[in-house]
Amino acid sequence: MTVTLDDIRIAAERILPHVHRTPILSSAQLDAIAGCELHFKGEHLQKVGAFKARGAHNAVFALSEEQARLGVATHSSGNHAAALALAAKRRGISADIVMPSNAPQAKVDAVKGYGGHIHFCEPTLEARETTLAAVRAEGGQTEIHPYDNDQVIAGQGTTGLEITEQLAQTPPDVVITPVGGGGLLAGTAVAIKSLWPQCQVLGAEPSGADDAQRSFRAGRLIEQTGPDTVCDGLLTSLGVRNFALIQQHVDDILCADDSTIIEAMQLIWSRLKQVVEPSAAVPLACVLAHPERFAGKRVAIVFSGGNLDLAKLPW
Amino acid sequence: MTVTLDDIRIAAERILPHVHRTPILSSAQLDAIAGCELHFKGEHLQKVGAFKARGAHNAVFALSEEQARLGVATHSSGNHAAALALAAKRRGISADIVMPSNAPQAKVDAVKGYGGHIHFCEPTLEARETTLAAVRAEGGQTEIHPYDNDQVIAGQGTTGLEITEQLAQTPPDVVITPVGGGGLLAGTAVAIKSLWPQCQVLGAEPSGADDAQRSFRAGRLIEQTGPDTVCDGLLTSLGVRNFALIQQHVDDILCADDSTIIEAMQLIWSRLKQVVEPSAAVPLACVLAHPERFAGKRVAIVFSGGNLDLAKLPW
Repeated sequence: MTVTLDDIRIAAERILPHVHRTPILSSAQLDAIAGCELHFKGEHLQKVGAFKARGAHNAVFALSEEQARLGVATHSSGNHAAALALAAKRRGISADIVMPSNAPQAKVDAVKGYGGHIHFCEPTLEARETTLAAVRAEGGQTEIHPYDNDQVIAGQGTTGLEITEQLAQTPPDVVITPVGGGGLLAGTAVAIKSLWPQCQVLGAEPSGADDAQRSFRAGRLIEQTGPDTVCDGLLTSLGVRNFALIQQHVDDILCADDSTIIEAMQLIWSRLKQVVEPSAAVPLACVLAHPERFAGKRVAIVFSGGNLDLAKLPW
Repeated sequence: MTVTLDDIRIAAERILPHVHRTPILSSAQLDAIAGCELHFKGEHLQKVGAFKARGAHNAVFALSEEQARLGVATHSSGNHAAALALAAKRRGISADIVMPSNAPQAKVDAVKGYGGHIHFCEPTLEARETTLAAVRAEGGQTEIHPYDNDQVIAGQGTTGLEITEQLAQTPPDVVITPVGGGGLLAGTAVAIKSLWPQCQVLGAEPSGADDAQRSFRAGRLIEQTGPDTVCDGLLTSLGVRNFALIQQHVDDILCADDSTIIEAMQLIWSRLKQVVEPSAAVPLACVLAHPERFAGKRVAIVFSGGNLDLAKLPW
C-alpha cells in the first residue's frame, strides 16, 4: 500500500469539520532579508497548535465502527499525543496515550484536557513500546503511530493540498517542510508533486539530527542516534513508509545548524509576530543558510507547530 | 474642532493603499478560560507592527502639497516614530524624528530603515520639546503629534470602523482598547458609538499608569507622573483632544496590575500564538481581573502592537 493524491483528497473531506484551514502568511520585510518571496502555511494556528491534528483526525475517523468501539492508543511525548486525544474525543471514543515519565507538564496537561488516558513509563523507546503493547493486549485498541501510518501520512498531506488551493494563482517554485518522522514531508510531497510536477519539494532538518538527509543521500534508512538540537519535534528517525514516499517524491533534504534555526525563529517572532516552535523555523533557516539556491524564487514553507515552553526560550 | 465618523471614513479611504486591513482572531480555549466570547483585532500585524501606522499615514497624506514639501517632524521613542517615518517615505517627503538618547536600538533602527532623520536629545520631555522646536524653526516641518492631533485620532479610529465591518453579523457587547495618550481609544470610541450606540466602549490601562482612569473619574485631566509598569507604550499622559472625546464617548476605564497583564500576555502567546507587546495585553488582563463584568458577553479587543525586545521578556 502507498499514499496517493486520492487518499489525501478523501482525508481532506473527512477532516474538514474538525480542523482549521490555516492561513498563508507573508512579510515584505522578511522577503527582503531572505532575498526571495516567502509564503508561510500557518499550521501553528491549527487545532492543538500543530499539523498533527490533521493526521490524527484522519486516522481516527477512518476507523470502522467495530475498530472505533475499542478506542485508539499510541506512545508519544509530543503534539501527536494531544492531537490523538482530541480526535478520539471528537469521535466519542477512548484514547490511551503512553508517555515517558519526563514528558513536559504542558504536553501532559494538553492530553488530559482532551480526556486522554495517560500511561506513564520509563523514558526509553523499549519501555514505551512494551507499555503500549500491554495496554493494547488488554483493551484491543488500534495503534495510531505518529507518522509511520498511511492514514496519518494522508492526513498530513492535506497541508500540501491546501497550499495548492491557496497559492493556485501563483504557484511557488519550491515547497519546504520540516522533517522528523517524515509524515508531513511525505504527505505534502505526494500532494504537491501530483498537482504541480514542476515544483521542487524539499525537507528541512537540523544538522544535529540529520538522519533524513543521510538516509536520502545513501538510499537506505539510517537510524537517528544521539540527536543534538533545540528542535524537540524532530529528534526521531524517519518511518519506513515515510522514507519510501520521500525517496519517490522529494527533491532534496537540506540542513541548518541550531544557531541559524534560532536566528530564523527570532525573525519569525519579530517580523511576522507569530509564535512558532524551533522545529517550525528549520525551513526558513535552510533558506537563510543557502541563499544562492533560493534567490528570487517563490518559496512556500510550512510552519509545523507553535507549542513550546515560553519560560525556556532558546536564546 | 473635533473628530467625527465622517473624518474617520475619509481617513479610511485615504490610508487604504498604505495600511493592512488586519484580521480578527479568536480561540475557543481562550474563551473558555475568560468565560466570554473574545474577538481580537490584530493591529500587531499592521505595518510597523502597531496601529500607529493608521494615524501617521492619515496625518501625512492629509497635508497640503505646500505643507508636505517642508516635511514632517515629531518627538517619539516608540511606534509613532517608525510609523511617521514610513508614512513620510510613502509620500516622498522628509521626516525628522527627535528621539531620546536612551531609545531602544530596535526603534532607532526601524526609523532609520524607513529613511527618517533622527535627532538625539537628552531623555527628558523638556529636551525633546526644545530639540523639536529647534528642528522645526529651521526647516518649517509640520509637527505630527503622536496622539493629540485630530488627523491622528481619525486615523486610529479606522481600527474601530473596521471592527464594525468585520463583526457586522454579530456585533459585540463591549469593545476594549488600551489607553496611553488616548488616540486609539478616542478614535475607536467615536467610530463604535456612532455606528453601534448600544455597544460599550472601555479603555484598559495598567494600574501603574492609571492617569486615564483617574482623569475620567475626576472629570478633569490629571497628569501621569512616575509611571511604574511593564507597558512601555502606555506611560504617557492623556492628550487634551483625546480626553474630551473619551469623556464624551467612552463608558469606563478599567485597570489591571502588571502580574495580570503578564499572565494575559502569556495566554495570548501560548494560545493564539501571537507575539503582542505588554501594552496590547492590557484589555485581556482587565477582562481576567473583572470576570463578573464580562461573563457570557461578546467582547472585541484591540491588540495595539507587537514590538518588543525578545531578549528581555517580562517573565
